[in-house]
Amino acid sequence: MSKFVYKFSEGNGTMRELLGGKGANLAEMTRIGLPVPTGFIVTTEACNDYYAQKATMSSAIVEEIREHVASLEERTGKKFGDLENPLLVSVRSGSRASMPGMMDTVLNLGINDVVVESLVKKSGNEKFAYDSYRRFIQMFADVVMEVPKAEFEVIIDEMKEARGITLDSEFTGDDLKEMVQKFKDYYRSQKNVDFPDDPFEQLIEAIKAVFKSWNNDRAIYYRHMHDIPGSWGTAVNVQEMVFGNLGEDSASGVAFTRNPATGEKAIFGEYLVNAQGEDVVAGTRTPSPMSELETQMPEIYKQFTEFSAILENHYKDMQDLEFTIEQGVLYMLQTRSGKRTAAAALKIAVDLVAEGLITKEEAVLQINPQLLDALLHPQFDEADLAKANVVGSGLAASPGAATGRVVFTAEQAKEWADRGEKVVLVRLETSPEDIEGMHVSSGILTARGGMTSHAAVVARGIGTCCVSGVKELHFNANGFELGGNQFNLGDPISLDGTTGRVYSGNIKTVDATISGDFEEFMGWADEFRTMGVRTNADSPADAAKAIDFGAEGIGLVRTEHMFFEADRIKAMREMIVAKTEESRRKALAKLLPIQQKDFEGIYEVMKELPVTIRYLDPPLHEFLPTEEKDILEIATELEMEVSELKEIIASLHEFNPMMGHRGVRLAVSYPEIAEMQTTAVIQAALAVTKRLNISIHPEIMIPLVGDVKELTYVKEFVVETADRLIAESGQTLEYSVGTMIEIPRACLVADEIAKEADFFSFGTNDLTQMTFGFSRDDAATFLTDYYDKNVYERDPFARMDQEGVGQLVKTAVKLGRSTKPDLKCGICGEHGGDPATIEYLYQVGLDYVSCSPFRVPIARLAAAQASIKYGK
Amino acid sequence: MSKFVYKFSEGNGTMRELLGGKGANLAEMTRIGLPVPTGFIVTTEACNDYYAQKATMSSAIVEEIREHVASLEERTGKKFGDLENPLLVSVRSGSRASMPGMMDTVLNLGINDVVVESLVKKSGNEKFAYDSYRRFIQMFADVVMEVPKAEFEVIIDEMKEARGITLDSEFTGDDLKEMVQKFKDYYRSQKNVDFPDDPFEQLIEAIKAVFKSWNNDRAIYYRHMHDIPGSWGTAVNVQEMVFGNLGEDSASGVAFTRNPATGEKAIFGEYLVNAQGEDVVAGTRTPSPMSELETQMPEIYKQFTEFSAILENHYKDMQDLEFTIEQGVLYMLQTRSGKRTAAAALKIAVDLVAEGLITKEEAVLQINPQLLDALLHPQFDEADLAKANVVGSGLAASPGAATGRVVFTAEQAKEWADRGEKVVLVRLETSPEDIEGMHVSSGILTARGGMTSHAAVVARGIGTCCVSGVKELHFNANGFELGGNQFNLGDPISLDGTTGRVYSGNIKTVDATISGDFEEFMGWADEFRTMGVRTNADSPADAAKAIDFGAEGIGLVRTEHMFFEADRIKAMREMIVAKTEESRRKALAKLLPIQQKDFEGIYEVMKELPVTIRYLDPPLHEFLPTEEKDILEIATELEMEVSELKEIIASLHEFNPMMGHRGVRLAVSYPEIAEMQTTAVIQAALAVTKRLNISIHPEIMIPLVGDVKELTYVKEFVVETADRLIAESGQTLEYSVGTMIEIPRACLVADEIAKEADFFSFGTNDLTQMTFGFSRDDAATFLTDYYDKNVYERDPFARMDQEGVGQLVKTAVKLGRSTKPDLKCGICGEHGGDPATIEYLYQVGLDYVSCSPFRVPIARLAAAQASIKYGK
Repeated sequence: MSKFVYKFSEGNGTMRELLGGKGANLAEMTRIGLPVPTGFIVTTEACNDYYAQKATMSSAIVEEIREHVASLEERTGKKFGDLENPLLVSVRSGSRASMPGMMDTVLNLGINDVVVESLVKKSGNEKFAYDSYRRFIQMFADVVMEVPKAEFEVIIDEMKEARGITLDSEFTGDDLKEMVQKFKDYYRSQKNVDFPDDPFEQLIEAIKAVFKSWNNDRAIYYRHMHDIPGSWGTAVNVQEMVFGNLGEDSASGVAFTRNPATGEKAIFGEYLVNAQGEDVVAGTRTPSPMSELETQMPEIYKQFTEFSAILENHYKDMQDLEFTIEQGVLYMLQTRSGKRTAAAALKIAVDLVAEGLITKEEAVLQINPQLLDALLHPQFDEADLAKANVVGSGLAASPGAATGRVVFTAEQAKEWADRGEKVVLVRLETSPEDIEGMHVSSGILTARGGMTSHAAVVARGIGTCCVSGVKELHFNANGFELGGNQFNLGDPISLDGTTGRVYSGNIKTVDATISGDFEEFMGWADEFRTMGVRTNADSPADAAKAIDFGAEGIGLVRTEHMFFEADRIKAMREMIVAKTEESRRKALAKLLPIQQKDFEGIYEVMKELPVTIRYLDPPLHEFLPTEEKDILEIATELEMEVSELKEIIASLHEFNPMMGHRGVRLAVSYPEIAEMQTTAVIQAALAVTKRLNISIHPEIMIPLVGDVKELTYVKEFVVETADRLIAESGQTLEYSVGTMIEIPRACLVADEIAKEADFFSFGTNDLTQMTFGFSRDDAATFLTDYYDKNVYERDPFARMDQEGVGQLVKTAVKLGRSTKPDLKCGICGEHGGDPATIEYLYQVGLDYVSCSPFRVPIARLAAAQASIKYGK
Repeated sequence: MSKFVYKFSEGNGTMRELLGGKGANLAEMTRIGLPVPTGFIVTTEACNDYYAQKATMSSAIVEEIREHVASLEERTGKKFGDLENPLLVSVRSGSRASMPGMMDTVLNLGINDVVVESLVKKSGNEKFAYDSYRRFIQMFADVVMEVPKAEFEVIIDEMKEARGITLDSEFTGDDLKEMVQKFKDYYRSQKNVDFPDDPFEQLIEAIKAVFKSWNNDRAIYYRHMHDIPGSWGTAVNVQEMVFGNLGEDSASGVAFTRNPATGEKAIFGEYLVNAQGEDVVAGTRTPSPMSELETQMPEIYKQFTEFSAILENHYKDMQDLEFTIEQGVLYMLQTRSGKRTAAAALKIAVDLVAEGLITKEEAVLQINPQLLDALLHPQFDEADLAKANVVGSGLAASPGAATGRVVFTAEQAKEWADRGEKVVLVRLETSPEDIEGMHVSSGILTARGGMTSHAAVVARGIGTCCVSGVKELHFNANGFELGGNQFNLGDPISLDGTTGRVYSGNIKTVDATISGDFEEFMGWADEFRTMGVRTNADSPADAAKAIDFGAEGIGLVRTEHMFFEADRIKAMREMIVAKTEESRRKALAKLLPIQQKDFEGIYEVMKELPVTIRYLDPPLHEFLPTEEKDILEIATELEMEVSELKEIIASLHEFNPMMGHRGVRLAVSYPEIAEMQTTAVIQAALAVTKRLNISIHPEIMIPLVGDVKELTYVKEFVVETADRLIAESGQTLEYSVGTMIEIPRACLVADEIAKEADFFSFGTNDLTQMTFGFSRDDAATFLTDYYDKNVYERDPFARMDQEGVGQLVKTAVKLGRSTKPDLKCGICGEHGGDPATIEYLYQVGLDYVSCSPFRVPIARLAAAQASIKYGK
């Protein structure tokens, strides 16, 4: 038979999955002899059983709880409902991962009309006893019976008014006694039953309520934001109450073993005398800093510092502690790893290694790679932020903070930026034509689009703050309206790309400061790391930035991004509307020197580091104008009838462009494009090789291959062109030709494709789209419903889906290497910067990941952690 | 060392792959003692080697041929270039599959200025000798050296004019001698070298030319049309020449052992006295029917009928024979299975069984399932067709013949059809709104769209003739122009959906006549068949038709097709533009009785046969109007501002609708739709169960599932609704809930999905789109380039891609049955009617296939063949 309930003394710190984090730590503190009020834990499995039984608690579990209550009564010498020595307990949630404030808590459980009198007698404090009683009724009614707390506050306010008082503490014992009665009456009026006075019944209901709170809206939302699976469930901790509000020798407090903002080694926290825990965080009274406890209760403080040191040494990490002092006796109520800022996390990790408490491996494993993001981007000044006015929010699409003046077009952005203004570009959604404007903006705000929309992808690539998908943003004649505020051209606005919040007005920003701790820590990570980390970069500037962040090569140059810039788009359009191979070749000849110069710039920065260049990928119509005036202009430029141009544009229309004429399909139709790109790649490499006297090895990548014959066909043109140019130059140059694996079919026939490919690079954006059968541009509409209804828990475009997409990647690597055992395999999709995905891909055996420059440190750390966890 | 050349006596009839069909049969005839001029075969492997060596013949192969020439000289007692007894040979292509007329032939090879004189001497016939010489020069120049035959015809015409004659036969021996000289002069003027006079050199060049002709445009096209892989290559048959043109006791002919049009058992064919083989087919002289040979050369005829019987008995099939009579001696030059009409094929198969020549299994295996198509649709009257005028051609999208008057809209189609006119609907492309118009048309013609375009799919479903993708059709103000003809409303036009040809004017059609042979033959097929055959049908009429054709259930009812009809689309639109669940439910309530009635109609036809009903699948915007006037009308109907309606339509726009908000995703967002459809399915089943006192078992199919949680979520609504309705009715009813597997991810996680699904039905149209990453609507543009460039050989939407899509299907079946060993698996995509796909799916272990009604007999036969080939 399953065991669903554990005494604290039956558990330990490793049992988080079963007992939840709080429960496991209470058990662990008990085990190592710290003063913890005794109690028991109803497991996460009981929670899952509750849901499996369609939200009912099985009688077996009820009975097991009953036995544990009896055992608890025995250990404490107290009894539920006892006249002399009544047992009161707290009932708290505690899941495997910390979800602060998301689920429910009931304190003082066990009180009823009999018990309250015994409390009066025991404490000699009628106010305390009845205040505990009314708090219990409020919490129980709110948490268990869905009678909102606020409705009871109305009763309190009425009584204050009737008595002409303003503070809770001014109520007399009799007042509180009356209040308890009014509460119970109100409860009966709402629920049509008496407030339950049987403590065991109260307990079972409270436990069920905690289970239920696992699936309240804010808990689901929190889990979605923090990637916590709904299947984990929550445990429930039932613990003997201790009271910090039994007089001046009682207190409650919370403290960290080190400063969570800076990492400084010193106890940091606050406490309140004569108060229960909830009062410390409620903000109705101002707590005192922990340093004052040293003078106020020196013995207790000494004992606390001892416990603090014991726990830090025991857990080998900075701890976040909760404690209560009941009539001069210190009780520990919780310990857990403390949340901290990125800077503090690095300092603590480096200090703990210096103190000999942890090894470098442990330090590297301790830091969540995502945390590094905050160190690499500007942040808002905390003080200034506190005063700011939130007007809306969207997706935290690209981290950092930005402040500037509103502009609406890429042209405005360039114009204003040229005058030295900081600007925030606000668009319905961005398109490739906006690239230049995005580059000069401090931040980007879009009304539409998800985490992998054009705006989001480009912004992350260039490290610019971006908030996307702000649905409540409505454009109007003068500008736009958001949260009741009108913003016109030039109005100040601020964005937080880390939280997704939008603020009106300017907020001071603080530049990223990469401390010495960062360098030291990343050095350790690189010691353990075995998987390569490259970057996706389309320009020398991006490439240089990525090298600063530790990139070891470029995994993806998107050649088409280069074609959107003003001086090139014309030749590009000429190429697209060409009706014959001859006129297409003429247009391509114009693009060749431009493209070659781009590649030379990148080689000059990357020197001998590898550079993977992807050939033209998007559907051609993306390059064509859509607005009447642009069409007119281009028709004139190209000496073409407007009607003829429109016909060509119409003929390029596709029903599903994502699944249309793009990638290698373009090169099969027009091999002359691949020839031109090869000429640019090779001539640039030859030129830079000569100029810098270095050895360059370009990696040519053919996108969207689904069958080896496509690759064979295009590769022939590539190799013929490259070999001819190299022979003509009299220089030596090695190059390779590989493919992007981004079509499900490519994964299934990867053994065939590997015969022609020198390397595989997984394009998991497209692979995710095709494998799930939804396009990232359209999925946002219904994915919201999916999250709301708990069908999906996370965005498969942000974290690679291991069950589906991951299986295809694994299959492709295995098949590919069955043909070529040393086939180089990497990833260049957005997922290449996601730590969980990196961990998975390490296990699959990829040689490298490639991500946007600002995610390079994150990828380095995640890769190091994978090597430590799974062996080199 | 490989052997690349085989004497006829070294081969046999089973060696088609290596020796080609013609070569294997020549070897086989030699083996069984028929009089075959001796020779040797250069294998298909030599052809593949030629291509692998970049179109050169290896010296090893040249030497092997040289040895075989020596051996041939020995066997015949003749010698290449010999003055006394010269060896002349024919050089013919012969691939594994018959590709009549696609590749090249050279006759009389070995002639030169010396040999021709020896021929004169031997035959005593200068005209014959020089005529043979000039024919050889023409053929060799054309086939081997790319000097077109027609250029030599000009010389012939000039000579005729100079001599004032009109017939070739009027030339004297001297004339022909002069002609040979002129030919050789012309050849030198074109190629700058003398015409080669070394017979061995002629032979090697001719063999290389045959190899080269394997990849000429028409051969590639033919292979593409007939699914013949390019990798097979062709063999080359080198055979001693025999001459049917050596006088009145010589002749050439072709004959069938049975009548290829009717199947009647009698020799059927024709011959020409004093002629070479090419003259029989060239049509310059009128050949005599074989019956005349009996009187003209009774001994030869008797011998021929004996050979004919020997070959038919040997090959156990009707044979197509070529023969030559040289100076009273009969030689057999070719035997192969004869091409025949569908009706003949059935009669021959049934007769051969009756004659005890083959078993029923062999009969079932003998008939290509595709052939049955012709029996099920009307065809043009042959005589009338011969006089018709082809004006264009497109894809043979749905078989049959149609004739009628041109209409351009669905409304016109209905209006004219109501008046009793036969109409052909001509559209740029069709859309779901055209359904009713398509139903009343005799044929459908579209300018755009491929084999799986909307027009093609619907037409095949309803058995209506359709020609799609006629690119040269241009619409204009009055109608359209095609092949230089203007067609206006009401003009007569005819379509052949089996060939893709379009004709001006009316052509008589002949109704399909399903003979007794058909019934008998299909009965045998069903005896051997173990896999079920269902149909895709959306209406009682379709269902009834499919049952006539032998369908054993419905594998796919597309519920959305029902919503496009005029009386329903309004409620459907109301549902779509609903802003609240309440108003959506109101609109759904209007759709419910309509949908229920549809289902009752289908159940009434199908009775106790299984019916699988797919829930709403397409993106909602497909139902919305696109034209201004329709929008206005609907806004008025729905009492809505036009601007508001437009905003809703815009908000439903998707970048890639194929990968958008559709299928199960709609049901997750709006479970009330699934509830309504469940209500209709169940209430209809309850009503018909009661009315007919039968037991109905509806199969509810949720489309586009990619994760088990989607199915779980929607299934809960379905089951809750169904169980409630059944309980309320007091009746008993069993139903199942399954899913369509059409997303690559679904295949990869099929073990999970099978936990919730009662059955899997593969939707291989979508699965193909997602696996290849191209949409069928857009792929037509570039697939043409793919075929032209030999990158792809066939349309993956017509025949399932076994390497990619097939692997996913296999994986899904395996994973699904690992969860539920008896999981029912079927296919309901277009591929369900393709014989090669059916054979593959049989091996994968599917329980049934489902296809459009008119393909049901084809599927039955293909499934029977699979059972026979791979065991039950």
